[in-house]
Amino acid sequence: MARANTLASLGEFGFLERLFPTLATRRDVVVGPGDDCAVVRCGKQRILITTDVLVEGVHFRHAWMTPRQLGRRSLTVNLSDIAAMGGRPTFCLISVGVPTSYPVTSLSAVHAGIEAAARAAGVAVVGGNVSSARRLFLSLTVLGEAGRRVVTRGGARVGDELYVTGTLGAAALGIRQLRRGRRLGAAVRRYREPQARLAAGALLAQRNVVSAMIDISDGLLQDLGHMTAASNVGAVLNVESLPCSSALRQLAGPAALQLALRGGEDYELLCAVPRGRVPLLQRLSGQIGCRITRIGRCVGSDRGIELAGSERQRSVLNKEGWDHFRRS
Amino acid sequence: MARANTLASLGEFGFLERLFPTLATRRDVVVGPGDDCAVVRCGKQRILITTDVLVEGVHFRHAWMTPRQLGRRSLTVNLSDIAAMGGRPTFCLISVGVPTSYPVTSLSAVHAGIEAAARAAGVAVVGGNVSSARRLFLSLTVLGEAGRRVVTRGGARVGDELYVTGTLGAAALGIRQLRRGRRLGAAVRRYREPQARLAAGALLAQRNVVSAMIDISDGLLQDLGHMTAASNVGAVLNVESLPCSSALRQLAGPAALQLALRGGEDYELLCAVPRGRVPLLQRLSGQIGCRITRIGRCVGSDRGIELAGSERQRSVLNKEGWDHFRRS
Repeated sequence: MARANTLASLGEFGFLERLFPTLATRRDVVVGPGDDCAVVRCGKQRILITTDVLVEGVHFRHAWMTPRQLGRRSLTVNLSDIAAMGGRPTFCLISVGVPTSYPVTSLSAVHAGIEAAARAAGVAVVGGNVSSARRLFLSLTVLGEAGRRVVTRGGARVGDELYVTGTLGAAALGIRQLRRGRRLGAAVRRYREPQARLAAGALLAQRNVVSAMIDISDGLLQDLGHMTAASNVGAVLNVESLPCSSALRQLAGPAALQLALRGGEDYELLCAVPRGRVPLLQRLSGQIGCRITRIGRCVGSDRGIELAGSERQRSVLNKEGWDHFRRS
Repeated sequence: MARANTLASLGEFGFLERLFPTLATRRDVVVGPGDDCAVVRCGKQRILITTDVLVEGVHFRHAWMTPRQLGRRSLTVNLSDIAAMGGRPTFCLISVGVPTSYPVTSLSAVHAGIEAAARAAGVAVVGGNVSSARRLFLSLTVLGEAGRRVVTRGGARVGDELYVTGTLGAAALGIRQLRRGRRLGAAVRRYREPQARLAAGALLAQRNVVSAMIDISDGLLQDLGHMTAASNVGAVLNVESLPCSSALRQLAGPAALQLALRGGEDYELLCAVPRGRVPLLQRLSGQIGCRITRIGRCVGSDRGIELAGSERQRSVLNKEGWDHFRRS
């Protein structure tokens, strides 16, 4: 059982679970570790803070995107966390580790990508540091204003409807195509240039539409699992209603379904909407800036996560060892 | 001239200089990139933000300190930046890159070190992320309250006296001893367990003693160079008055002088004190929590940085290519 002593066996979430229960709570900490952002008090303001890192060889390969796209992406993955809490991003710090052989022109392009994405989102890059490192890494910290209402991943209740913005699975399809040497197409573009759903997140939170929200970075099923665990509910997911992009729909069925459910890198928002707020959501849907699709509902926590769909989908998912499936 | 295109040739400061002029300024950014911390407005509050990273093989070696000491250090180097602006640290985020083979017990010890240092400084660790990486890195972001007065590195004026807290050079001596396989002694301890001068920094800033302040992480001469450049002044340093620890004084003279001037990793504060505030400094010296030593004064920027000392010291420094030396 030597493996049990390394991060490889425990995984990020296993380690975070070990780490976070020991962290102290304080009155000026509104939301501590374990959500998309921390929320802290600073005078009368509530500030969102989040940090996320891209490591070469782990989160990206140089061949998969331009340095400028990489810079843009390193900010976007953090902006997505601000979006998931319904906030407005304000400031950014950059910590970069750079191999000594990395061209300065490339590093300048990374920086230009960060700056462009920052400008578009109203974020000021206020500082950072550059260190040498064996492999390139970009660790960004983003601050945000919390707005009147902070939405966590822990507020979903039994009976709430589950919605998702945009489409799922295309980014993961893009990675698969890049691994196979394909460099063009909508899916590759989707992977290279993710969008943070800032306008949608702020609207859904501040207009009091949603009870819980999380961004989909690890794949729908995994992030739904985080939301249901934090909310102490279960969920039924209607597999047939998952919004897949046209690139994904060209794939044979089972592969598309797997990418939509588990692919990750979508940076869409998954949210829970109390039934009484669904009419409001429908009224606001034109202002969200993207499609928003009902994909399921919250049920009792004893039911875990159930998938509902056709017989064919059931046979696909059962092969993957999925043990909660019922026909829709 | 191919070297001119890589970070190896340009160096961190060269790259930062290229990077930072392009960064936008905004009304809510009080101090932007280029100081120890950024200072931003958040409602009526002014917040300090800083980020710093430790990379294995660049900033430390595993054999040089325990994982707990490493964790403590990763926070302390950030706290030192808060101290240099006269602030009070409040919150911390951790971004860790971990080789998959790194033992979880070691990672937990790193975390325990961060937590212990955070508790001692009144800092709440509010979040973070863990990623896999080829080599261990710890990128921490620390927030702080700015206090009534924010001291930058750019406020020194001609005629101001230069002071430094604590002693210089021992940490660099400790690294030298560790490289030679020595694992014990005061210098090694000093390297392994640096202290951030939070109380001193806050007192000197908030009681309006200092006109400029910077923490000494890159070595006295280099950080003095940053302060004089930002303040558009020159400086005369009295080499004979540099406060060396007893461990350093046991070395032969030239080596000790070099370590005190260029060694780095001291995490002491270098500050400029207007002459009229020197009596106040003397009255407060009992509350600073460490010794504070006058080491020189600010002169016109045309004089650059001059060293003043004995004939013997001059011969040592001239061998290093130092071209502004005069006898004291």
